[in-house]
Amino acid sequence: VFAPRSENAMTIQPSADTSIYVDLKAARDAGQALAGAPANVRDEILRDLAHRLADPQKQREVLAANARDLALAQEMLFNGELTQSKLDRLRLDESKLNALCEGLRQLSSLEDPIGRRRVHRELDQGLILEQRVTPLGLIAVVFESRPDALVQITSLCLRTGNAVALKGGREAAATNACLHEIVGETLDHFGLDRRLVLLLRDRNEVQDLLKHDDLVELVVARGSSSFVEAIRAASKIPVVGHAAGICHLYLHADADPALSARVVVDAKCSYPAACNAVETILWHADAIAAMQRSIEELRKRGVRVRGCTATRAVFPDLEIASEEDWSCEYGDLIVSVLRVDSLDEAMKHIAHYGSRHTESIICQDRFAAEEFLAKVDAACVFHNASTRFSDGYRFGLGAEVGVSTEKLHARGPVGIEGLCTYRWILHGEGQCTADYGVGRKAFTHRDL
Amino acid sequence: VFAPRSENAMTIQPSADTSIYVDLKAARDAGQALAGAPANVRDEILRDLAHRLADPQKQREVLAANARDLALAQEMLFNGELTQSKLDRLRLDESKLNALCEGLRQLSSLEDPIGRRRVHRELDQGLILEQRVTPLGLIAVVFESRPDALVQITSLCLRTGNAVALKGGREAAATNACLHEIVGETLDHFGLDRRLVLLLRDRNEVQDLLKHDDLVELVVARGSSSFVEAIRAASKIPVVGHAAGICHLYLHADADPALSARVVVDAKCSYPAACNAVETILWHADAIAAMQRSIEELRKRGVRVRGCTATRAVFPDLEIASEEDWSCEYGDLIVSVLRVDSLDEAMKHIAHYGSRHTESIICQDRFAAEEFLAKVDAACVFHNASTRFSDGYRFGLGAEVGVSTEKLHARGPVGIEGLCTYRWILHGEGQCTADYGVGRKAFTHRDL
Repeated sequence: VFAPRSENAMTIQPSADTSIYVDLKAARDAGQALAGAPANVRDEILRDLAHRLADPQKQREVLAANARDLALAQEMLFNGELTQSKLDRLRLDESKLNALCEGLRQLSSLEDPIGRRRVHRELDQGLILEQRVTPLGLIAVVFESRPDALVQITSLCLRTGNAVALKGGREAAATNACLHEIVGETLDHFGLDRRLVLLLRDRNEVQDLLKHDDLVELVVARGSSSFVEAIRAASKIPVVGHAAGICHLYLHADADPALSARVVVDAKCSYPAACNAVETILWHADAIAAMQRSIEELRKRGVRVRGCTATRAVFPDLEIASEEDWSCEYGDLIVSVLRVDSLDEAMKHIAHYGSRHTESIICQDRFAAEEFLAKVDAACVFHNASTRFSDGYRFGLGAEVGVSTEKLHARGPVGIEGLCTYRWILHGEGQCTADYGVGRKAFTHRDL
Repeated sequence: VFAPRSENAMTIQPSADTSIYVDLKAARDAGQALAGAPANVRDEILRDLAHRLADPQKQREVLAANARDLALAQEMLFNGELTQSKLDRLRLDESKLNALCEGLRQLSSLEDPIGRRRVHRELDQGLILEQRVTPLGLIAVVFESRPDALVQITSLCLRTGNAVALKGGREAAATNACLHEIVGETLDHFGLDRRLVLLLRDRNEVQDLLKHDDLVELVVARGSSSFVEAIRAASKIPVVGHAAGICHLYLHADADPALSARVVVDAKCSYPAACNAVETILWHADAIAAMQRSIEELRKRGVRVRGCTATRAVFPDLEIASEEDWSCEYGDLIVSVLRVDSLDEAMKHIAHYGSRHTESIICQDRFAAEEFLAKVDAACVFHNASTRFSDGYRFGLGAEVGVSTEKLHARGPVGIEGLCTYRWILHGEGQCTADYGVGRKAFTHRDL
């Protein structure tokens, strides 16, 4: 067990008078203590948290807190302050809690990333270069209503030796506080400062935090594109945006109707509020049967379908899809449908309207699939699979802090790798650069 | 040889009237053509460029252009518009050109990164996940007076299937134009659009480019911290900053005097204008002999030394180091010297004043070295080696577009890896996410 650090073993005492600086500094220091501990300590912390979260008494407490949040959310829904899809995401149950425990155990058994050597190279005799993985430091994550995200994000930060400052949605305040208390009990048990995992109370604290580019290494912003942009504009800290998911399914000329309908239904209906849900279905003129079957199955499930002129020639009672529909993330049981004349036209539409999140082609033709997979510029490109597979757990990453639509650093589901950086370490014997060059010593550059 | 694309085989026709959009779009398209070509085409392009650049006639042309730049630079130096260190960086010679050819050949023989599979995982039977390396797309690089950077940056972009828009210092305009013309000849030879490698003419074009976050994926900004901040503030495009290098050498208690002096001299004198040159020497009270010998050797080479009170007690005629000196990147034959009481104090000074670039400890004590290497948060941390080893070529990366002082994406010398991203590719048979979960199908998550 990790040795208790008595000077830090105090609980967080937030005060409205003082700036957030003291807490952030304490979080960063606690992160360094966690990162400096042996790998098996981080394994044990994750298992301990899983154990506490699996406890029936604890689960009752969490679900009671969640019920309080849901009751308030119902009022907010009634007053128009909250959408149905946000309310749906707020709800926890025993099965979701058990899935979180399972994720924690999966993470605890993954190889510890800290200190992993990615490069080991002799530059010359007695001059050895290493590239080693290290934690980022202190990370801030601003996320929406889904409270299971608190546990997933925390667990990834613990696995990677990072401290974290969390800001959840206010509609999930009671649930998040209860889950955060359980995390605190685990940190107490290992003698770690509870401030390793901070829970921010309001937007003012987030604004304060965004000023501290001296302490915070990364902000993960989950929300709408405009929300991510606002965070980016307010801070010098690098931001990884988990933003809009305008995902497409393209039914190519030879798309199998039954397979198409099954995948379309999963991509839209299994969780319409998720960022990896499909928003627009593109169909090749020859895939009319696949399109028909898909729309029929969607309508059976209460999905509102908006069609282009060609689609409405087949289903005249569909709503009309306007230009705005092609760039809309409904987050709801609504889908737009557009006929395209070719694979190329489908890819052009995706390049123009897509958000580089997840794009999928349904076809049997291997060549068409390969072309789509090679040319579409998105974090995730799929063949004959639902867009909803874009997910850290499903990809085998254990969990995710979000799905990045950036191209730099981390792309797609962000797991362990996205929360780490590296350092170059050089071991020498007094070597000087002026001794190397044309007519002087040569580098060996030999990988060890 | 790569098939000529006749519709693109025109030279750049810049017009002051039109926006830069057309050129950037053409660059991006040409980048896609390059990325889509087989790996051996990119090998051949690099070898062809090396061949042209090794041609004596071409070298005479480059050096003649460089002489014109140097003549103007001398005038600018005289008028106070240019510093001596910028003038020094501007100068090319045959040996530098041959080193560029050698770098190009080294890059041509490195494994092609495009399409490399980093993850290959079965999620379930018939559901196969891959993570594959892809180019970023169109990259912009704004760099200072050193014209060899043009060839190094271009070669890395060609290796990685990226298009690039370059903006060099105006004092290197003739040299850069000449080198750019040679690159253009290589692109012509392979039937690629010359606009694959754009050379921007002035700051207005840079300002225009910074607006095009729809076309440009990354800006590499090389220059002062304030310059990097200005670029960042002017654009939504992600910026990788090659900024201040406030590097330290710490002479620990048992530092060998001869070894210390040798490394100190190399770290300061071999190229004082480089970002990896040392700016401050820290010495432990017990390392007084190492400090003395180092200062003596520096002064023999005309280095101006600024000391703290304790240092000046040994060398009373030193200039006084003030608070500003500890955060100053001299870029010149000037160094500041500070006594510290312990390894811990040295690390605290580095954490406070360092720019996370390169930090080196000189000592024999293995434990002190390990503590320094484990705890100092910088891109490069060295033991018994000159800070000037922080360099893409010396690290065996072939070349570098810069040295990143960021923690995200790429850290330290940025070579091939920093110019690439990846995509997640999923091959399925119609799988749906709703079929997986507790009581339903389980993922296999088996690495292949």
